[in-house]
Amino acid sequence: MAVYTEVADDQLDAFLAEYDIGEPISCKGIAEGVENSNYLLATSRGTYILTLYEKRVDPRDLPFFLGLMDHLAARGIPCPTPVHGRDGSALRTLAGRPAAITTFLPGMWPRRITVEHCGPVGEALARLHQASAGFTLKRPNALSVSGWRPLFDGSKERASEVTPGLAEELAAELDVLERGWPQDLPAGVIHADLFQDNVFFLHEKLSGLIDFYFACNDLLAYDVAICLNAWCFEADRSFNVTKARALAGAYQRVRPLTVQERESMPLLARGAAMRFLLTRLYDWLHTPDGALVRRKNPLEYLAKLRFHRSVAGPGDYGI
Amino acid sequence: MAVYTEVADDQLDAFLAEYDIGEPISCKGIAEGVENSNYLLATSRGTYILTLYEKRVDPRDLPFFLGLMDHLAARGIPCPTPVHGRDGSALRTLAGRPAAITTFLPGMWPRRITVEHCGPVGEALARLHQASAGFTLKRPNALSVSGWRPLFDGSKERASEVTPGLAEELAAELDVLERGWPQDLPAGVIHADLFQDNVFFLHEKLSGLIDFYFACNDLLAYDVAICLNAWCFEADRSFNVTKARALAGAYQRVRPLTVQERESMPLLARGAAMRFLLTRLYDWLHTPDGALVRRKNPLEYLAKLRFHRSVAGPGDYGI
Repeated sequence: MAVYTEVADDQLDAFLAEYDIGEPISCKGIAEGVENSNYLLATSRGTYILTLYEKRVDPRDLPFFLGLMDHLAARGIPCPTPVHGRDGSALRTLAGRPAAITTFLPGMWPRRITVEHCGPVGEALARLHQASAGFTLKRPNALSVSGWRPLFDGSKERASEVTPGLAEELAAELDVLERGWPQDLPAGVIHADLFQDNVFFLHEKLSGLIDFYFACNDLLAYDVAICLNAWCFEADRSFNVTKARALAGAYQRVRPLTVQERESMPLLARGAAMRFLLTRLYDWLHTPDGALVRRKNPLEYLAKLRFHRSVAGPGDYGI
Repeated sequence: MAVYTEVADDQLDAFLAEYDIGEPISCKGIAEGVENSNYLLATSRGTYILTLYEKRVDPRDLPFFLGLMDHLAARGIPCPTPVHGRDGSALRTLAGRPAAITTFLPGMWPRRITVEHCGPVGEALARLHQASAGFTLKRPNALSVSGWRPLFDGSKERASEVTPGLAEELAAELDVLERGWPQDLPAGVIHADLFQDNVFFLHEKLSGLIDFYFACNDLLAYDVAICLNAWCFEADRSFNVTKARALAGAYQRVRPLTVQERESMPLLARGAAMRFLLTRLYDWLHTPDGALVRRKNPLEYLAKLRFHRSVAGPGDYGI
C-alpha cells in the first residue's frame, strides 16, 4: 500500500501532453505495489496505470522491465503493455521520478487461493517462459544463490531476535544450497515474484500477470519453485499437494520439465524459500518502526523451507 | 492512504449480488481517505466507489451521511450518490464492516491551490448550504466549540512537547472562544471538512465534492471559516487575501452572509483553526510510532490561529 510521490495536476497535464491517450479525467493513487507509486489514471480514451519508480528500483533496469512487457504483450501474454509517447519512448520523468504508463488489466487478485487458481497460474508461467525466449536484453538475478550469502550477512547478527537458532539453521542451509545449486538447467527470463497479488482473475479465468519489477535471467524451473512456495501452502503452513499437482501439471502441458529440472525441484524450492525468507528477515530487522510499510513475517518462509527439506523427491510435489 | 479491510473475491461477489450494477471487473484499494477503506470498483456497468467504514466512524451516523448525499445529489450538488441495493438499502455489511457503494466522480483534487480554485469552492459551498435546507435528519457537531475543551484536556499535559507554551496559549484562546462563540447565526447542514483533497476539478471546473463523513448541523458561516483556513493560506503560512476574496465573494453571490455572520468571521475563523489544531495535536501525541498513518503538523494551525487573532475585522478576509 503505497503512494510515495504526489503528482501535481499541472505536472500530470504536462506529462500526458507527451502521449496520445486523451485528457485526464481522474488519477487516484492505488494501495497496491510496495516498491513504487501507482496511480489508476482515467483519460477520455480509457483507463491506464501510471507508475512512478521509487528508490528501490534501479533506473538502469527500467529498459529491461518495460522492454520485456512490450515483448510479452506482443506475444499474447496478458501483461501490462507500456504506452509509448509521441517520441516513441515509454519511459520519462514525472515529479522527479522515472515514470511510465501501462495499459490497465481487468480482474482481481485472489484473496483466497483455491486449487482452481493453480492450474491457470502454472500454464501462464510456462507461456511466459516460452514467450520470453526471443527477448534479447539481459538482467542477472541479484536475488539468486550468489546473492543470498551477502543478504544473510546483513541480518545474521540479529536473526535470533526473530527465532532462536535461526542464524545457525540458515548458515547450514546456505552451505547446502551453494554446494548443490544446479548450473546447467534451462535458463531464460523468469518473473521471479509471481505471488497471488500479481495474478488477476476474471470470471474464474486468469486475466492478467503484473509487476515485472523482479523479472530477470535465471533458471526457468526456479520460477516454478517460487510459485510452489507462493501458491501451494495453506494458511496453517501445510503443503497442499493437490494445488502443486495442478500448478506443475498445467505448466508441463505447455513446457514439460526436463528430468534434471524435476530432480532439482526440491533443492530449487528450498532456494526459493530461502530467498523470500532472507528478504523478509532483512526488512523485518531493518524497517524503522515508523515506516509506512507492513512487514511480512519471515517465519512463514522458515516453515516452507523446512517442508522442502523434508521431501523425498519431486513426487512429493506431484511432479 | 488507507486500506484497512481486505475484501475477498467471493465476499465481493456475494455483496454485489445484492445490487443491480453488473459483474465486478476490477476492485482496487485506493490510497485516499484516512478514516475508511476505499476501493475503486469497476463493473460491467460502470465505475463506483466501494467504502468500508472503519472504527472511527460511528455506524449510527451512516444513515445521516448516506441520506445527505442522496438529498444533495438529487438537488444537483456534484457529490457521490449512494447506490441502493435491490432491497432499497444503500447500507449493508461486507467483510464484517458497514459498507456502501457510491457513484464515481470524475476529476482530481488540486495539489497546488490557485486563486482560480477558490471561487468555485465558495460557490459550491453556498449551493451545498442551500440544497441541504430541506434535509430532515440531524447530527450535532461533536467537533464544535463545546467539544474543544475535552479534546484539549486529552492533550494539554504533553502539548509543550510540540512547542513551548502551547497549552497556555490554547487555554486562553479557548476561554475567548467559549465566551464569545455566536449562538444565533443561520444554521444548517455543513460539510465541515472541505479541504482541497475533498474537492475535484476537471478542465478547470469544479466537478465534485466528496467525503461527507464530518457533515453535521452547525453554523453555516463556520463552514466558510473552515474553508478560509483550508484554501487561503500559502505554504509559508501567509494569508492570501485574494484567495479569500474569491472564495467569500463567490459564496456571497449565491448566499449573502448576514451582517452578524460577517462580523463573526474573525472569531469563527479562530474557532475553525482551533478545531483542526486540536485534532491534529491529539493525533500527533496519541498516534503510535508504528501506525500506518502520516501525522499532520499541528503547528500549521497555530500559525493560522494567530493570524486570525490579528485581524481587525471581516474586511481583512475581503468580506
